[in-house]
Amino acid sequence: MVSKFIVIEGLEGAGKTNAHNVVVATLKELGVTELVFTREPGGTPLAERLRELTLNNKGIGDEIVTDKAEVLMFYAARVQLVETVIKPALARGAWVIGDRHDLSTQAYQGGGRRIDRQLLMALRNTVLGDFYPDLTIYLDVTPEVGLNRARARGELDRIEQESIDFFNRTRARYLELAAADERIKTIDATQSLDDVSAAVRNAVIEWAKGII
Amino acid sequence: MVSKFIVIEGLEGAGKTNAHNVVVATLKELGVTELVFTREPGGTPLAERLRELTLNNKGIGDEIVTDKAEVLMFYAARVQLVETVIKPALARGAWVIGDRHDLSTQAYQGGGRRIDRQLLMALRNTVLGDFYPDLTIYLDVTPEVGLNRARARGELDRIEQESIDFFNRTRARYLELAAADERIKTIDATQSLDDVSAAVRNAVIEWAKGII
Repeated sequence: MVSKFIVIEGLEGAGKTNAHNVVVATLKELGVTELVFTREPGGTPLAERLRELTLNNKGIGDEIVTDKAEVLMFYAARVQLVETVIKPALARGAWVIGDRHDLSTQAYQGGGRRIDRQLLMALRNTVLGDFYPDLTIYLDVTPEVGLNRARARGELDRIEQESIDFFNRTRARYLELAAADERIKTIDATQSLDDVSAAVRNAVIEWAKGII
Repeated sequence: MVSKFIVIEGLEGAGKTNAHNVVVATLKELGVTELVFTREPGGTPLAERLRELTLNNKGIGDEIVTDKAEVLMFYAARVQLVETVIKPALARGAWVIGDRHDLSTQAYQGGGRRIDRQLLMALRNTVLGDFYPDLTIYLDVTPEVGLNRARARGELDRIEQESIDFFNRTRARYLELAAADERIKTIDATQSLDDVSAAVRNAVIEWAKGII
């Protein structure tokens, strides 16, 4: 059984942690033994420093990070993670479960922040080439549902403080990209936790039929 | 008199600080009053944090920064500096004198480190578009001369510890790009300090005839 890279995506409060647990349990049912977990931006010391700079402005006071600088830092963190963690894990036979990956950049920066989508796609292709997740579980919620859940959890970071419009644009871009790529499975994450869990499990099992 | 962006480039020990002083004095002769100084990578709090990460591995232990991550961080720092410092300075009528700019990336990463030159040029074009220095003074020295001078100054950082071959490749790329772009003036910086200073002054004055 060839190792695979599975990514969980969605707005804040979409239920990524629950979906992660369901994916892990389902893979174990299917006989997968070694799993590596990543989160983006982050996952290596360098990538974590870049995460602190982009998400929390750590060490740079109130400097406004330009859109292009932010995107380049996300890609620096991503390529570092892909080349030093994800690809080596896959090469030794481990499966990798990612909390966010490139689709987040396309959705949040390209949709929410309205950064030139061709620039983002050009950067993606230049930096990552033909490296894509084998399966992406996109948990679809309205911003209202997601943000209410996220607020209940505590503090929101810089990106999470953006407006409802921002998240509506982000969600629209997620849906658009998911519709265009059969490796991305969209799950209605406004359902009850049990129903979402069942849908995630079914999505993984259906997908695995083709490849395991 | 329209404000301009002048960059000083060259290997370690080429004499950039002296050339900087000569350029400043020459511009004052020519009637330029407001000058802004930049150095790359760096020049804003964000760009300085990225400089510490790329040049000194600050806060990331002995993690090996991949070539692509390093290049993306250089471009993040550069675009932040260009958009928040250089362009606003030029727009208000100040002249900008840069200690290194994009040519360093093309020479050190594309030449010295052998990172794909088309990738570097694609990144440059994607990130900076049609923004170029109006004049670049490239101080040409052999690595042997330059490194002997740099060692006399004290500790060398990570890039400066590379081999003579690395610097020969870097120099070759500098020379190649300088030959192809009339906005880049090559100065023989193995000459005596007085001769280099005179050559830099003459280069600025000749160039200024066309534009001031």
